[in-house]
Amino acid sequence: MTPDFVYEALPQRVLFGAGRRHDVAAEIRRLGVRRVFVISDSANGNELADSLGDEVGFQVAATWRETAQHVPEDLAARARAAATAAAADAVVTIGGGSSTGLAKVIALSHDVPIVAVPTTYAGSEQTAIYAITGGRHKQTGKNALVLPRTVLYDPELTLGLPARVTGPSAFNAMAHSVEALYAPGANPVVSALAMAGVRAIHGSLPIVMADPGDLAGRTDLLYGAYLSGMALGATAAAFHHKICHVLGGTFNLVHADAHSVVLPHAVAFNASALPDEMAMLADAMRATDGDAAGALWDLAAASNVPTSLAQLGLQRDDLAEAANRAASEIGPNPRPYTAADILALLERAFSGDRPSPQRA
Amino acid sequence: MTPDFVYEALPQRVLFGAGRRHDVAAEIRRLGVRRVFVISDSANGNELADSLGDEVGFQVAATWRETAQHVPEDLAARARAAATAAAADAVVTIGGGSSTGLAKVIALSHDVPIVAVPTTYAGSEQTAIYAITGGRHKQTGKNALVLPRTVLYDPELTLGLPARVTGPSAFNAMAHSVEALYAPGANPVVSALAMAGVRAIHGSLPIVMADPGDLAGRTDLLYGAYLSGMALGATAAAFHHKICHVLGGTFNLVHADAHSVVLPHAVAFNASALPDEMAMLADAMRATDGDAAGALWDLAAASNVPTSLAQLGLQRDDLAEAANRAASEIGPNPRPYTAADILALLERAFSGDRPSPQRA
Repeated sequence: MTPDFVYEALPQRVLFGAGRRHDVAAEIRRLGVRRVFVISDSANGNELADSLGDEVGFQVAATWRETAQHVPEDLAARARAAATAAAADAVVTIGGGSSTGLAKVIALSHDVPIVAVPTTYAGSEQTAIYAITGGRHKQTGKNALVLPRTVLYDPELTLGLPARVTGPSAFNAMAHSVEALYAPGANPVVSALAMAGVRAIHGSLPIVMADPGDLAGRTDLLYGAYLSGMALGATAAAFHHKICHVLGGTFNLVHADAHSVVLPHAVAFNASALPDEMAMLADAMRATDGDAAGALWDLAAASNVPTSLAQLGLQRDDLAEAANRAASEIGPNPRPYTAADILALLERAFSGDRPSPQRA
Repeated sequence: MTPDFVYEALPQRVLFGAGRRHDVAAEIRRLGVRRVFVISDSANGNELADSLGDEVGFQVAATWRETAQHVPEDLAARARAAATAAAADAVVTIGGGSSTGLAKVIALSHDVPIVAVPTTYAGSEQTAIYAITGGRHKQTGKNALVLPRTVLYDPELTLGLPARVTGPSAFNAMAHSVEALYAPGANPVVSALAMAGVRAIHGSLPIVMADPGDLAGRTDLLYGAYLSGMALGATAAAFHHKICHVLGGTFNLVHADAHSVVLPHAVAFNASALPDEMAMLADAMRATDGDAAGALWDLAAASNVPTSLAQLGLQRDDLAEAANRAASEIGPNPRPYTAADILALLERAFSGDRPSPQRA
């Protein structure tokens, strides 16, 4: 039966398809803004950003090319000052999560709309979540002001993304869709969208990893990343993400790299507590045996992304500390857990074996 | 491959589940409004409307119990005058499509938010479409102002809906989800939601028709109707709806009654032009033979709703005129058609036989 739920649908205009980057100027004009602050973080982003200078109906009041993960507070302060000096009434971001993240902190302080052209699978353009990092701590918040008003997805902009970035970034997106099934805020509307995301990523990732220039594969993968971002925006970080957060934060693993390794094992751990959700997830990956965790591991293997923590450079001696930290950070979870459970999970992820279904 | 698309997601807060009607007052307070205009159109709606008079934080500035299909313009004028006299700053509607429709014309003229508590499967609370009927013509429009800000779905309010209203109303909803696959504005995000709607309606309608008091069935059916309303709101009327519109408008058939009869035949006609969409639709109804049109007819038969135009009182002599009118009203369609095609379709719908797959 349909469960009780609360769902806050957020407003956004999305344009999707190869060549959509050519609609950016028209979409800026559609908002009726005059002075845009343009952020870009890559060669093809810069080229698109430069082309906006020739457009009529609005001015490029400033361009900005310095971005950094997690938006350091001094960078945020300088970008905000530049936006003030430029009297910007809109922000355009052409780039990955760091670029979108910087646009968000300007939108927050200046109350201006964002037009986003994502070039990776981070999904930040689909959420009202922002972050600013000062010293060692990351301040995050949620505010409808920072959700991009208009998003243009152009898979042609992702053709040059190297496989070593594509794989982990896509698995990060996959993890958002998977955890949306049971994270706080989960609801059947978002689950339906998340499973369409899983279907798209599952079908396209091995193709794209084998041939990063495959436009059809890139199109489906970007579509899956869009839905996964929406799934994250409607829910919150859960079990798997908290474990990856500890691995990234404490042991300096690249955040996204941990996703492909940990996700199959995190799903295997929770599977017995989520029979309906696992059936949906297995169905989205056409796993006729119903083993969603196994299908995720198979996807990682077929996509040639990391499948063991050892591969990522973690030491076996670090697992106990990681397990203890993760156990204290994970909140409510479908299946109850102890630090020993997390350690056992991490040991399986360290070895890189295909997970086997577990009893609760 | 994911097709090109444009999707305008609209903002709305949805609360779903048995007993949600008890949250109406809290949701009104959440909007920070002071003087609400309350429309209701049924016994349980009136009871809920009356209970709002005892709440604190806002006043019931006026109550209104006269509603009519298609919102006649004199009714609209009187309700608008009453809203002005009451200095209303919000409208609450507890009822079916006529009640929601009246709330929308007030929201449009007074620029006030709507809180909707739907008690049927009409789905109007999910669209930005409004209508006012003057003389013989129906003026319709689309405006974001009329989309309810907050919707509370409480399946307990639908337990008393008689089977003769439930069946056609649910098939009307089903038709919205089915046509969302190929209507103007169709996109994969909305298709995913529409197919979740088909799944929910298909699974619950026979149960509810056999036992109108089955709360689990009513819950799933209301969920399916919610998604179907969203699907309609994001797309537009297409082939099947235009045919039903002619049957309702020219021959005075009850609008919703025509849906269960015509839908299987309309789908059979278009099926050869929509192989991917039909596979999705068949999958949502667990039709392993891939015959979506047949599965829709089986659903109608299993739900004991009308399956032939003869049953609805149409005369065989009327079919030719209906076909000619429909052929001139239907716009672009996945499969090209002539008036003769529509006549053949209507003849099959008149006989009430199970449709068989057709060649293009």
